[in-house]
Amino acid sequence: MKTHAYNPHVSVDCVLIGFNGESLKVLLTEQSETPNNKKGSGMKLPGRPIFDDEDLDEAAHKVLLEITGMNDPYLKQFKTFGAPDRTSNPDDLSWLEETTQVKMGRIVTIGYMSVIRITNKMNMNFQNHKVTWCPVQELPRLAFDHKNIIEEAIREIRRTSKLYPAILFELLPAKFTALELRRLYEVIYDKEMDVRNFHKKITAMPYVIALEEKQTNVAHRAARYYRFDKKTYNKLYGQY
Amino acid sequence: MKTHAYNPHVSVDCVLIGFNGESLKVLLTEQSETPNNKKGSGMKLPGRPIFDDEDLDEAAHKVLLEITGMNDPYLKQFKTFGAPDRTSNPDDLSWLEETTQVKMGRIVTIGYMSVIRITNKMNMNFQNHKVTWCPVQELPRLAFDHKNIIEEAIREIRRTSKLYPAILFELLPAKFTALELRRLYEVIYDKEMDVRNFHKKITAMPYVIALEEKQTNVAHRAARYYRFDKKTYNKLYGQY
Repeated sequence: MKTHAYNPHVSVDCVLIGFNGESLKVLLTEQSETPNNKKGSGMKLPGRPIFDDEDLDEAAHKVLLEITGMNDPYLKQFKTFGAPDRTSNPDDLSWLEETTQVKMGRIVTIGYMSVIRITNKMNMNFQNHKVTWCPVQELPRLAFDHKNIIEEAIREIRRTSKLYPAILFELLPAKFTALELRRLYEVIYDKEMDVRNFHKKITAMPYVIALEEKQTNVAHRAARYYRFDKKTYNKLYGQY
Repeated sequence: MKTHAYNPHVSVDCVLIGFNGESLKVLLTEQSETPNNKKGSGMKLPGRPIFDDEDLDEAAHKVLLEITGMNDPYLKQFKTFGAPDRTSNPDDLSWLEETTQVKMGRIVTIGYMSVIRITNKMNMNFQNHKVTWCPVQELPRLAFDHKNIIEEAIREIRRTSKLYPAILFELLPAKFTALELRRLYEVIYDKEMDVRNFHKKITAMPYVIALEEKQTNVAHRAARYYRFDKKTYNKLYGQY
């Protein structure tokens, strides 16, 4: 069997952003305990040094597959982080070196991101990894510069969705209510939106189609469902 | 004086795209001759390994400043390239190692890009560098994977300009004719455009303002000038 050597200078980190209809979350993994009890800062993004014979995209896909069981997620390289001091925390560095059994150098990391809808039926296979969906508003202390990487990923979604709103509908179910769409805008842009203005906004989106169908089995007044029309969208903005 | 050590694993490369009203060009530099006559493939993008104490953005700015004299160009990190075989050409690798006097490892390069208008009055200070503006349609053999990096940069401009047309007006003079704007679209999208349809397209751009002024001293019928209205644009698309 071919062995793969870790590259001690380049890593990939994956920012998987999820929405459960209520808040924006990011998938974090726990830094596993090393034989010498090196624990690092606690939580981190899924990621690792690349192998020396490995392409960057390949490494990112393998990281996410291994941790989540997602086989072919939409993963986008969004920014590369290379501040000279990004691995200067000695706890994190020794944790990394013990985990990989490799002496690390200056590490530049390539950030990848993906967005998904979090559901109760979600069938992720987290295997032996301790993972958690953490609300982006309540990030704990994170290893390395991972807090900064997450913030940049959210800025990237904000920028992208302004110009390319299709990305937002990846975060919603096939049928969604105006409230769910508004809540998504609120968490992405981090500000409350006026209900009436938001309804005007929906009317101005020709690719958001009001359905005849309404919610059932709800205590409050049943809300109308909407759907995202990819065909209309692609006509306006080109293939997503 | 502090000495800076080259990092043998990470580099930056700058794709400076220019438009002279006629064709799209990219700035290339010649691989300088080494003491042992190692010449590499011939031409390359401006770029170099980063120094070990240097941030990525900082390195890219310094590269462009050193080669062009441009002090504060708009430079955007657009993609990181890390195919394991990207430095597999032995001529290029030995040229690089002789130039830097450092044994290189696997090199991942961070691609930066910028767009500018090429004019006769352009006051670039190329110092001792042999540089050339090469039409992107006529690229010679290039070092490493630089041809691929240039192609990706042009795809990036195409994507960006579709959603964020302001970037195109960086490539035009303050007053431009419909022909110049059409020619720019043609070279960016690499296809001819129908004159009549293109005039409709201009009319549909509220941020392109027709001026009363026309060309003077031209042999053909004087064409009307247009200008890009940043205020109207920003209202529509937000700050550029």
